[in-house]
Amino acid sequence: MNLSPLQLLSEHGCFGGLQCFYQHDSREIGLPMKLSVYLPPQAARGTVPAVLYLAGLTCTEETFMVKAGAQRVAAELGLALIAPDTSPRGAGVPGEADAWDLGVGAGFYLDATQAPWATNWRMESYLMQELLPLLGQSLPLDMQRLGITGHSMGGHGALTLALKYPERFKSLSAFAPICAPSLCPWGQKAFGNYLGADQATWAAHDASVLMNSLSTAPFPDGILIDQGLADKFLADQLHPELFEAACARVGQPLTLRRHAGYDHGYYFIASFMADHLAHHAQALS
Amino acid sequence: MNLSPLQLLSEHGCFGGLQCFYQHDSREIGLPMKLSVYLPPQAARGTVPAVLYLAGLTCTEETFMVKAGAQRVAAELGLALIAPDTSPRGAGVPGEADAWDLGVGAGFYLDATQAPWATNWRMESYLMQELLPLLGQSLPLDMQRLGITGHSMGGHGALTLALKYPERFKSLSAFAPICAPSLCPWGQKAFGNYLGADQATWAAHDASVLMNSLSTAPFPDGILIDQGLADKFLADQLHPELFEAACARVGQPLTLRRHAGYDHGYYFIASFMADHLAHHAQALS
Repeated sequence: MNLSPLQLLSEHGCFGGLQCFYQHDSREIGLPMKLSVYLPPQAARGTVPAVLYLAGLTCTEETFMVKAGAQRVAAELGLALIAPDTSPRGAGVPGEADAWDLGVGAGFYLDATQAPWATNWRMESYLMQELLPLLGQSLPLDMQRLGITGHSMGGHGALTLALKYPERFKSLSAFAPICAPSLCPWGQKAFGNYLGADQATWAAHDASVLMNSLSTAPFPDGILIDQGLADKFLADQLHPELFEAACARVGQPLTLRRHAGYDHGYYFIASFMADHLAHHAQALS
Repeated sequence: MNLSPLQLLSEHGCFGGLQCFYQHDSREIGLPMKLSVYLPPQAARGTVPAVLYLAGLTCTEETFMVKAGAQRVAAELGLALIAPDTSPRGAGVPGEADAWDLGVGAGFYLDATQAPWATNWRMESYLMQELLPLLGQSLPLDMQRLGITGHSMGGHGALTLALKYPERFKSLSAFAPICAPSLCPWGQKAFGNYLGADQATWAAHDASVLMNSLSTAPFPDGILIDQGLADKFLADQLHPELFEAACARVGQPLTLRRHAGYDHGYYFIASFMADHLAHHAQALS
């Protein structure tokens, strides 16, 4: 596989390791893509396990590294952190930046099949077929020891990609994920535009539908989800109870913690980040 | 004293405490001013000590709370965190936003004496005569147990305000502070505009000059400063060696740590935040 190399944009000392920002020419997206990687101090001496973090609507490859306070814990645990961007940028699709929940910043971690999105909006293939192999080739990351997590739209991405590629991810968690996108306004808008009106095609990208379709638990060591009860998107957009019911039906162990007083933002994410990275480290170490 | 009340703009659950954003009509500045306060869980049961953080050029009242990862440690130690804005905003001074190192975002924590700045650029009086009393009246903060820290321009602010008001601050630290503003381009530009060409007026706002003028150590328990050696501003703007020499001359204990590989940004600040808050907690508890 001929992958365009990573170009280092900047690196910063951080908790004894390195906070790195990269760009590369993506074959799948057809455009340059940015990403960030935190390499813990242990990466100077050999390969380390990694956690892939998928961010939410409007975020970039920088948001998680700036706001989540994850590097301290990652340095202690010897985990690398990988944060890709949330969509193509610069494609020039008409209207791509007109709404914050469709187009730029709103890739939903799937491959669009509908014009005008299908050419560039290929985030699933980008992540699975291009970015992860490229990182495995380029950095001291052990891609056999990879976990996945994410927030909101990125929580949807984490759940659906982990369920579609359980052999690629050894651990799974999410913060306030969109759990049933086929049934919420964000998901219906995105899926309708990216996948078309035929809702049969949506099922492959709906975490609750995917979990319901399984006969055995794909993550027998458990899935961790945190959800704030002061989250203004909880009632209409997130539906954790549907994923919870699907897990119960399949016998998938799930720790779904509901936290009074926490909202949808990064102060919530930061507050519980240490628990998530510990969850991943246990499976990856 | 009749102080305009704090208006709560937003609050967010964070590490068991509350991340709060406020606005109030400032008498000293003559404009509305924003600020942020982190209240640790302990503040629900009584007053807590606090650390005032002064941010650097271009920052706002939000920067520290988003980027520094300080709330986790503050929650553990029972410390409140206070972050004011870095200048007046909306004054309409001609050219106030033309440069990132003068005017908006560049208050330098002093009272300007020169037109057109003198009316609004009164950050020293704002902090000492208005904001700290207002916070003591309004929130469960014990203003007898107050520490001060800051970064870059805010490190200059922390050092100079602590040396001018040692009775108000029980502990002092700084990240990559401007230690001798009279001798660096940032300081010369700001002081020349805010204080005028007569450099005799600059001495009261230069940490190294202030320290050199003392006969006894104002912080006998020590001052903590961290400085990255990959900081691109170190050679021309910061001059920690001059503050170090002044402390040595006065007998002021100083822990000045120089860190290879760390730059001027918040990945550096976050990496050493826990040490700074522990330094303050020891003096304030």
